[in-house]
Amino acid sequence: MQRIKCTVAYDGMNFCGYQIQPNQRTVQQEIEKALQKVHKGEPVRVQASGRTDSTVHAKGQVIHFDTPLSLTGEQWMAALNTMLPDDIVVQQAEKKTLDFHARYGVVKKEYRYRVLLSKKADVFRRHYVYQYPYALQIESIRKAIPYFIGTHDFTSFCSAKTDKKDKVRTIYELDLIEQGDELIFRFVGNGFLYNMVRIIVGTLLSVGQGKISPESIPDILKKQDRRFAGKMVPGQGLYLWEVNYNN
Amino acid sequence: MQRIKCTVAYDGMNFCGYQIQPNQRTVQQEIEKALQKVHKGEPVRVQASGRTDSTVHAKGQVIHFDTPLSLTGEQWMAALNTMLPDDIVVQQAEKKTLDFHARYGVVKKEYRYRVLLSKKADVFRRHYVYQYPYALQIESIRKAIPYFIGTHDFTSFCSAKTDKKDKVRTIYELDLIEQGDELIFRFVGNGFLYNMVRIIVGTLLSVGQGKISPESIPDILKKQDRRFAGKMVPGQGLYLWEVNYNN
Repeated sequence: MQRIKCTVAYDGMNFCGYQIQPNQRTVQQEIEKALQKVHKGEPVRVQASGRTDSTVHAKGQVIHFDTPLSLTGEQWMAALNTMLPDDIVVQQAEKKTLDFHARYGVVKKEYRYRVLLSKKADVFRRHYVYQYPYALQIESIRKAIPYFIGTHDFTSFCSAKTDKKDKVRTIYELDLIEQGDELIFRFVGNGFLYNMVRIIVGTLLSVGQGKISPESIPDILKKQDRRFAGKMVPGQGLYLWEVNYNN
Repeated sequence: MQRIKCTVAYDGMNFCGYQIQPNQRTVQQEIEKALQKVHKGEPVRVQASGRTDSTVHAKGQVIHFDTPLSLTGEQWMAALNTMLPDDIVVQQAEKKTLDFHARYGVVKKEYRYRVLLSKKADVFRRHYVYQYPYALQIESIRKAIPYFIGTHDFTSFCSAKTDKKDKVRTIYELDLIEQGDELIFRFVGNGFLYNMVRIIVGTLLSVGQGKISPESIPDILKKQDRRFAGKMVPGQGLYLWEVNYNN
């Protein structure tokens, strides 16, 4: 048996998220279907670094699977990309030892969230950004950002639907990048709770609108209550950008 | 009656081109359907600057229609964008006198063609560029470009399927823009024959591959025979960028 690690990009728009669900089109289902074809009908289970929600994109999702086949990384890439639909692309494939695990080995994850600052919809980016038509005070957003960095209990910024008990996570970096007509929020952390990035971005946009003051972020964190944070922004602006492992 | 001019952007991917065809989803059909709703069931015919083919995009297609309704440009934009599917967006709407005509009044058109220089598919640009995996000598392409500028008989660079007799057109500008991992070809002319931009780009890529010499372009033009030019590139990289009229 060989363990294969793949870095996978996908356009989330036409998927009901990453994880397999009955009667839904999911990324995991498409990858396992492709692997089954390569393995002449034998089912192959895939492990991912984590799930992504409906319409959420990935530039660098990481998965692994075990296989009796002896192919090089290049050959795995070619074989899978031939079988996969065109909204999933394997970017890299390599052999790993059996102690590599796509989920349990994660040490750092990067997410990005793209906001299009425009009153008008952009027909070519409609699936790839969140179009935001209101004026924003960028300086207020910049003041609020540092309060999120570090180790905190993020209960207030987590969907109530989660099944995770431990809500403490560490955000190493949170950058705001102004790029043309877009605002890009870049998050690097040791892990993210369910909807955490989307609720933090929604809260920062409320800060930019003057509805929440930058200085109230520490209070909202302390409340440990989802109702005190801002609205969740839509999935289509969110990208699982990169997943890092210890060597 | 008032004549309304609209500038329209659309993502061509899910359309069988601009022009109405039975049992196909087309841009014209969707716009006329939206206008019919605004006019309480009365059909409204639309005139465009020209057709675009299946999968071809528009950033600035121009259309006009006549209406008994008295709405401002802003109101037309809002009304139509509410009714239109999300792959068509009206960018601008304004009243014009009855001597304005979206097709017969055109004095200049700009098209752009985006080529992604990459061995790997980009999942987020798969509908918006032509992915080209081969090495190109950009300098050869730059040498070939000036031969296309000016007034020529473009029979060699026109689909044999055309019904136009006069194949003489003037290209005012043809620029090659290198932008990140993309090559963008920018065409400005008084009009373009059927598939002309896509055949010129295909020919320029053959020049970049060393299959056609830059100096042979004048000969290919002189032949007035489609078989001497290069292959046609796919529609998904092509954008009707802007249409200009005399004031």
